[in-house]
Amino acid sequence: MTDYPIPVNIDGLKFYHHPDVFSTEAGDILSDLTIGYHSYGSLNADKSNVIWVCHALTANSRVDDWWAGLFGRGNILDPEKYFIVCANIIGSCYGTTGPRSGNPATGKPYGLEFPLITIRDWVKAHRLLAHSLGIRNIHMAIGGSCGGHQVLEMCLDTHLQIEKAVILASSARETAWSIAIHEAQRMAFRADPDFFNNDHSSGSKALKAARGMGLIGYRSFDQYLAQQSDEDFRIKDFRAASYIQYQGEKLSKRFYGHCYYHLLNSLDTHHVGRDRGGIESALRKIDSECLIISIDSDVLIPPSEQKLLAEYIPKSQYVSITSDYGHDGFLIESEKISRCILEFLV
Amino acid sequence: MTDYPIPVNIDGLKFYHHPDVFSTEAGDILSDLTIGYHSYGSLNADKSNVIWVCHALTANSRVDDWWAGLFGRGNILDPEKYFIVCANIIGSCYGTTGPRSGNPATGKPYGLEFPLITIRDWVKAHRLLAHSLGIRNIHMAIGGSCGGHQVLEMCLDTHLQIEKAVILASSARETAWSIAIHEAQRMAFRADPDFFNNDHSSGSKALKAARGMGLIGYRSFDQYLAQQSDEDFRIKDFRAASYIQYQGEKLSKRFYGHCYYHLLNSLDTHHVGRDRGGIESALRKIDSECLIISIDSDVLIPPSEQKLLAEYIPKSQYVSITSDYGHDGFLIESEKISRCILEFLV
Repeated sequence: MTDYPIPVNIDGLKFYHHPDVFSTEAGDILSDLTIGYHSYGSLNADKSNVIWVCHALTANSRVDDWWAGLFGRGNILDPEKYFIVCANIIGSCYGTTGPRSGNPATGKPYGLEFPLITIRDWVKAHRLLAHSLGIRNIHMAIGGSCGGHQVLEMCLDTHLQIEKAVILASSARETAWSIAIHEAQRMAFRADPDFFNNDHSSGSKALKAARGMGLIGYRSFDQYLAQQSDEDFRIKDFRAASYIQYQGEKLSKRFYGHCYYHLLNSLDTHHVGRDRGGIESALRKIDSECLIISIDSDVLIPPSEQKLLAEYIPKSQYVSITSDYGHDGFLIESEKISRCILEFLV
Repeated sequence: MTDYPIPVNIDGLKFYHHPDVFSTEAGDILSDLTIGYHSYGSLNADKSNVIWVCHALTANSRVDDWWAGLFGRGNILDPEKYFIVCANIIGSCYGTTGPRSGNPATGKPYGLEFPLITIRDWVKAHRLLAHSLGIRNIHMAIGGSCGGHQVLEMCLDTHLQIEKAVILASSARETAWSIAIHEAQRMAFRADPDFFNNDHSSGSKALKAARGMGLIGYRSFDQYLAQQSDEDFRIKDFRAASYIQYQGEKLSKRFYGHCYYHLLNSLDTHHVGRDRGGIESALRKIDSECLIISIDSDVLIPPSEQKLLAEYIPKSQYVSITSDYGHDGFLIESEKISRCILEFLV
């Protein structure tokens, strides 16, 4: 159902083919938008039981897989109670249109010609999918990191009604710190001549390096020290280096370089204040009940960013979770996160 | 006086050609070690006025240039009072033997065949230079970041007597966090096929990316936010990205990819506890008076690492400097650093 091979087997993927041209925020068009998504459970009669999950950068719509700790009977994401939807973002490689899709203008994959897609484009695609499923009202939208960016934009989408929103380890705009990291990652891609080819594997070596760089901010100094220090006095072949290599290799088997590069560009467009009179003005417009969650050791999108969200969003609650896992805590600290959300949902 | 072109003009460079074979800690040899260095002022009659400065990763022996705020008449590094020496480290490209030097075995530059050089090898070279200058007693050794690593090793070198030592933004061993960053940087080099050539410019694109990555840890989140955020609502061509590109370009004009790569390997060997019964045992052996300085916003080698040094070094004082500049604070906060050292020197 996609015109590119999805790099890993994803059971249960569904597809929505948008019948119209999709116009991007930057003024480009995608004439044949396909959205790969998962849904779990059933929509109830009054369509009041929708939970919309937004995945982070290299994750996908299999939310029962990467957020297993929040998923399942009696849990937050309970498919017996809720109709849970998670859609793959535009530009990725898990079933939704992206750089490895065919460009109707050339008959070849877009590759590096894929247009700039903003976070708002991701969310517009979510809205089109929601409407196609008969959904205009969402009981709860939830996401961490750039999943949280999407939730913020969903709250500001006038064509959707979000009752409750859970935003973890996110920010009102992509910070200069993150953009700097992304640029170093992009420079690694541009240093790899293979990246400029137009194959699914193009830039796979640079992808490993870029992932390695990205990983630094996902955990914390103390966590690296505790988990990746060598016990002996070696002068080469360090554990921390093997870890970075391993994680780079792992991503290169389940992701495409062109997609990663384009998603970095998309991340950098995040700014809730654009065309809304700035950040404060935008956040004050949000009328969803919002739960804003920080991971206290997050060095990538630190708690100061979430405090700013909570400061301006009118109906917001702020919680800081204690964790050694840094930014990745939003994926790992399921138990603590579940407790916060359960209280919020009551 | 070197067999490779130094990428920038460095006035006043002096050379010491070691007459014997240099054996590295890892068991390799350099048969023709040259050390490029600077000295300022004059050695007094009883040779009691030596200040030895150790430079950080991509700096060089022109200490009056990169530490101008500490240098000059009436300042810490006063050439009218002290005989100040700074030597370029092995593996770099400012006059000391490194990967771009000729390999006597092949008649071509070493390139990637340059042997693994440890921090202790750097310091052994410093000692050989010191002895050649008639110096065995050093009034003060000073260095920040891996300059501090060298100072620690100098304090533990039984062939030198260090009276006072100033160690800024350093650690007892290279941390897992730093090694992880270095590995991501090395992966960027290995993704650039040009890196595997043996020219002075080989890997210059990857060098830019690696520098970009390195820069993230040199400053702090808040400093990036304050200095590199865009005022408008653009969706591309961000200031933070330009900054990283600019800094990458800048380094590529004054450094070689092969040298940067090898220096990263050298950094990772840092461990004062090797062959000395571990970190605590090694630090307890230091009998120099040590001033340990932290930059409070340092996320690369955070204050916890300097506190550990101060905890175990018997004659140590610890000072934390308040700064928004993160790790780079050791280069930028000259005034605050000067005040601390002046008190220490009295």
